[in-house]
Amino acid sequence: MASGEELKPSERTRLKRFSARGRFDRATINAILDAAPMAHIGFDYKGPAVLPMIFWRKENHVYFHGSSKNRMFEALSRSPQCCFVASLIDAFVLARAAIHHSVNYRSVVIYGAAEELKEPAAKLEGLRGLIERFYPGRWDQIRPPSPQEFVSVRVFRLPIEEASAKIRTGFPTPYAEDFGIPVWAGIVPLSTSIGPLQLDPNSAPDTPPQDISHLASLLGASIKTA
Amino acid sequence: MASGEELKPSERTRLKRFSARGRFDRATINAILDAAPMAHIGFDYKGPAVLPMIFWRKENHVYFHGSSKNRMFEALSRSPQCCFVASLIDAFVLARAAIHHSVNYRSVVIYGAAEELKEPAAKLEGLRGLIERFYPGRWDQIRPPSPQEFVSVRVFRLPIEEASAKIRTGFPTPYAEDFGIPVWAGIVPLSTSIGPLQLDPNSAPDTPPQDISHLASLLGASIKTA
Repeated sequence: MASGEELKPSERTRLKRFSARGRFDRATINAILDAAPMAHIGFDYKGPAVLPMIFWRKENHVYFHGSSKNRMFEALSRSPQCCFVASLIDAFVLARAAIHHSVNYRSVVIYGAAEELKEPAAKLEGLRGLIERFYPGRWDQIRPPSPQEFVSVRVFRLPIEEASAKIRTGFPTPYAEDFGIPVWAGIVPLSTSIGPLQLDPNSAPDTPPQDISHLASLLGASIKTA
Repeated sequence: MASGEELKPSERTRLKRFSARGRFDRATINAILDAAPMAHIGFDYKGPAVLPMIFWRKENHVYFHGSSKNRMFEALSRSPQCCFVASLIDAFVLARAAIHHSVNYRSVVIYGAAEELKEPAAKLEGLRGLIERFYPGRWDQIRPPSPQEFVSVRVFRLPIEEASAKIRTGFPTPYAEDFGIPVWAGIVPLSTSIGPLQLDPNSAPDTPPQDISHLASLLGASIKTA
C-alpha cells in the first residue's frame, strides 16, 4: 500500500475554506475511515437522499452492504454516483465570541461511482470483511450466509480516489481582541466507551465472551467491564 | 407543541423493510434530533453531495448554519431540496449467523426544501439557538457577532414534515435454528463521555468553568472530571 500517496484534489474535494484543515494523503484518509463505525451515503433518489451505513475499508475501496430491497441499492444501480462521508466529533470548542464556537472533528468525503460486487466469491469476501473489520476471527465461528440469505443482500464498493479528509484540532482560534472577555473558553472533549457485554439469553451454554479489544482500539474507545 | 402528532409517511419516508422500526410521531423524532450533536445533509452539487453539520431544533424546524462561502449554501440557494439525517449508534449487535449482525441505532431522516433566514432578527435568533442548544445562558456571556461576522455566515432551516425516525433496540433477532451455535452472541453497548474541561490558555483570569451538565444530559453522556 502506498499509504504516503497524495490524492489529487478535484473541484469537489478542494477546500474553499480553512484549507489548512484539508488532507489528501491516503494515510490520513484511511486512519479516519478505520476509526469511524458508520458512514452517511448521499445518492440520488428522486432528489438528494442520504442513508447511514456500517461500512468497512479494504485497501483503496470502502465497502457497504444491505438488503436487496434497500432503495439506495436500487438507486445506485441506476445512477451510481454517490458521496460517502465518515465523520467523528472529538470535542466541542467554546470561544469567547459567538461566531468562533466550533467542534474538533475528523471527516472524510469520497465522491465516486459505486460498483456492485456481483461475483459470488468477491461478494462473500465483502461480507466477511464487514465482520472481520470489527471482530477479527469471528467469521470462522459464525454461520455463513445460506444461499437464500446470500441473495437477499447486495454489496457495493466505492474507490477512494476523489477523496479528502478534513481535521480540526486544538483550542479556539486566538483572536486577541476577545481575550479579555470574562467567559470560560476551551475544549470539552468527547470520548466513547464500549461494554459491558450483554449476553443474548438464547445463547448456547458456556460460549466464551467476544473479545472486544480490537473494536475498542478501532474506535479509540475505552472498555467498560461493569 | 402537538408532540403527540403523527406525521404522514410519504413515498420516501415509508419504510420498505423492518417497518416495525419506523416511527412517525413528533415526540420520537424530536427526542432523537435533540440527542444528536451532528447531522449529515445531502444536497445536489453537480451530483449527490453530503456535508456533516452541527444543527439545532426549534419547534418543528431544524436549523443549521455556516460560512457564506460554503458550497452547500450556494447549492441550496439554487436547489433547496435536501435530505437531513441525524443518526446515533447505541450498540453493536452480534448474532450467531453472519447475516444477522446489526447495530442498535436511532435515526431521523427529513426530506424537504431548505429556507434561508435572511431577515436579521430571525437570523440572529437562529445563531443564538445554536449556542443555547448546547450551553443555555451562554449567549449573554459571549461577544455577539459583529456586523462583518454576521454577514459572513448564513442560516438555513428545514421543516420537520416529511420525516421519519427509525430505531433498533435489543438483542439479536431470535432465529431458533441457530441457537445451538457455540459463539458468543449479544450486545456491545456504546456510550459517550464528555470532559474533562480544557481551559484555553488565552482565557481571562478567573473565568468560572462552563457548566456542561445540560450538554451531558442532551447527549446522554457521562461527565469525566479528570
